Amino acid sequence: MTGFTAQDPDFVARVTAEFNAQGVMARLGMRLDRVEPGKVVISFPMSAHVTQQNGFVHAGVSTTALDSAYGFAGISLIPNTAQILTAEFKTNLLRPAAGERFVAEGTVIKPGRNLMVAQGVLYNAEQGPSRQIAIMTATLMVLNDEAAGVSA
Amino acid sequence: MTGFTAQDPDFVARVTAEFNAQGVMARLGMRLDRVEPGKVVISFPMSAHVTQQNGFVHAGVSTTALDSAYGFAGISLIPNTAQILTAEFKTNLLRPAAGERFVAEGTVIKPGRNLMVAQGVLYNAEQGPSRQIAIMTATLMVLNDEAAGVSA
Amino acid sequence: MTGFTAQDPDFVARVTAEFNAQGVMARLGMRLDRVEPGKVVISFPMSAHVTQQNGFVHAGVSTTALDSAYGFAGISLIPNTAQILTAEFKTNLLRPAAGERFVAEGTVIKPGRNLMVAQGVLYNAEQGPSRQIAIMTATLMVLNDEAAGVSA
Amino acid sequence: MTGFTAQDPDFVARVTAEFNAQGVMARLGMRLDRVEPGKVVISFPMSAHVTQQNGFVHAGVSTTALDSAYGFAGISLIPNTAQILTAEFKTNLLRPAAGERFVAEGTVIKPGRNLMVAQGVLYNAEQGPSRQIAIMTATLMVLNDEAAGVSA
Repeated sequence: MTGFTAQDPDFVARVTAEFNAQGVMARLGMRLDRVEPGKVVISFPMSAHVTQQNGFVHAGVSTTALDSAYGFAGISLIPNTAQILTAEFKTNLLRPAAGERFVAEGTVIKPGRNLMVAQGVLYNAEQGPSRQIAIMTATLMVLNDEAAGVSA
Repeated sequence: MTGFTAQDPDFVARVTAEFNAQGVMARLGMRLDRVEPGKVVISFPMSAHVTQQNGFVHAGVSTTALDSAYGFAGISLIPNTAQILTAEFKTNLLRPAAGERFVAEGTVIKPGRNLMVAQGVLYNAEQGPSRQIAIMTATLMVLNDEAAGVSA
Repeated sequence: MTGFTAQDPDFVARVTAEFNAQGVMARLGMRLDRVEPGKVVISFPMSAHVTQQNGFVHAGVSTTALDSAYGFAGISLIPNTAQILTAEFKTNLLRPAAGERFVAEGTVIKPGRNLMVAQGVLYNAEQGPSRQIAIMTATLMVLNDEAAGVSA
Repeated sequence: MTGFTAQDPDFVARVTAEFNAQGVMARLGMRLDRVEPGKVVISFPMSAHVTQQNGFVHAGVSTTALDSAYGFAGISLIPNTAQILTAEFKTNLLRPAAGERFVAEGTVIKPGRNLMVAQGVLYNAEQGPSRQIAIMTATLMVLNDEAAGVSA
C-alpha cells in the first residue's frame, strides 16, 4: 500500500498496455508483476541476454527494469491524457547482481502536477529486499494534455 | 586523442574480448566501434528490441550502451591484472532518443589508482554529437590485483 | 559566448539583485563575477568560513556556489515573470578543493520552457579551468507566470 | 539503532572533534546533535545566513549539512587511522526548505572497506521526518592508512 490514489480508474490496464509496448521489456525477459497506485514491480531472470563480462547482470539492464518500474509507478498516478517522461536518474550499485531472478520495485515518493520524484530498488528474489543490489532516485516530468509521442 | 596512455599494450584486445563477453551487447544489437586509451565508442541501431512505449530508445538501453562505453574506457587505462566496477552513474535525458543509429561515447575524465570519473554522451549518427540525447557522469572503482569475478 | 539570447533585457540587473538577496552568498564570501545569457560565474576566497576538517573547501560550499551559478544562468534565459527552481543536482568531486580563490562556472546546456539541464564546474583561480575540482549536472524547473515565493 | 558496530571505541570524540574543525559548520550555525555507529544528525536554524533569494534555505546549505552528516556517519565506522572522502553525491529537492529549524540525518546504508554508500534526509523540526525536504545518495571513499591531508 503506497497511500496514493489513482486518478485514472483504468491505470492497471494502461500500465499493462504500455509495458507490452516497450519492446525492450520482452527482449530482456522482463515481466510485469504488480501495479498499484504509485508502485510497480517488474522482474526478470538471469540469462545470457542480460550479462556483463563477469556473468552478473549489466548495470544498464538493472537500470532498464527500474526505470520502467518507477516510470509506470508515475503513470499509475496521472490522468489518462497525461504522460510521464524520465528527466534524469541516478543509480548506485551496492552489490554484484548475482542470482537467479531479479525484482525491480519502483515507487513514487513525491507526486506532483509537473514533476515527481521516484525511487527504485533492485534485489534478487532468493535473498529479498533487505539485500539491495542497486538503488535509484529519479525525476519524472509529467506532460499534461500533451500530444502523444513527446515522451522520452 | 584523449591524452592518456594505456598501461596494458593489449588493451584493445582486452576490451574487445570483454565486450564480446557481455551478453547484453549482442542482445541489444550493440557494436564496438572504437577503443582508444580512455575513450570507447559503442553504437547500435534503432530496432523493436530497444524501444519504450512511444517508439524511442528506452533510457535504460541508452544507459547500457554508455555504461559499457565508459567502463571499457576505464579498462583501457588499467593494468591487465586489474578490473573496473561501476560504483554509480547519473543520466540526464535531454531529448527523445529518435533516429536510426545511436552512438555512445564514453570517456575517462579523471583517472586514478582507486577511483575514476567518467562521462558518456549519446547522440544519433544522423545529427551528430552536438545534439546530445543523454549525458552521464559516473564513478568507476578500480579493483587492483583482484581475483576475477568480483566486478559488478 | 553561450549562443543563447536573453528574453529579459534586464537579466543582468535581475540576476544581480537576486544574487544579493541570497543571504548565504555574502555569508560565505561569494562574489558575482559575470552574467551572460545562459552562463554565470561566481567566485569566493579560501577562508576559515568555508572549510571542512582538513582545511579544504567543504563540498557543500562548492555546491552552494555552483548551484547559484547555474541557477542564475537559468534565470538569465527566462522572462521576468518566471522563476527557476533546482529540482536536483549531482556533484562529482575530482580533487581536493585547495587553493586561494575558487571559480564556479554555471552553464545552461539545454534550455526548455519547463525544464533546463545545466552544468557547473569549480576550479581554483591559480590553476584554471583545465584542472576541475568539482563538476555538477542539474535539472532546473521553470515556473512560468508563478506567484513569487514558490521557488526552492 | 543502525545495526552497525564502530571499530574505533572513541568514534564519538573523533566525530565531534572533526565537526568542530569544519569551519563552515559554525559559520552556518550548524550543530552536531547525535552520533551513532553509521548515523549522524546535524541541525541548524533558519537565519539570514543560509537563505536563497526567496527566503528558503539554499540547496547548497542543505547539502552542506547532509554531506557532513553522512560523511561523519562514515567516519563513525572506520578505524581511527583511516579517513573518509566524499566521491560524489546527488540531491533531490522535494519541497521548499521553509521552517524554523532543519534536521539533517546522514546514514551509511552499505559499508565497505574501500567504498561506502550513504544517504541523507533533510526535514524541518516542526513537521518531522515524514515530510522530506531534500534527499541525498552519496558514495564515500575510505582512505585506509593514508597520510593526513588527502581527504576532500
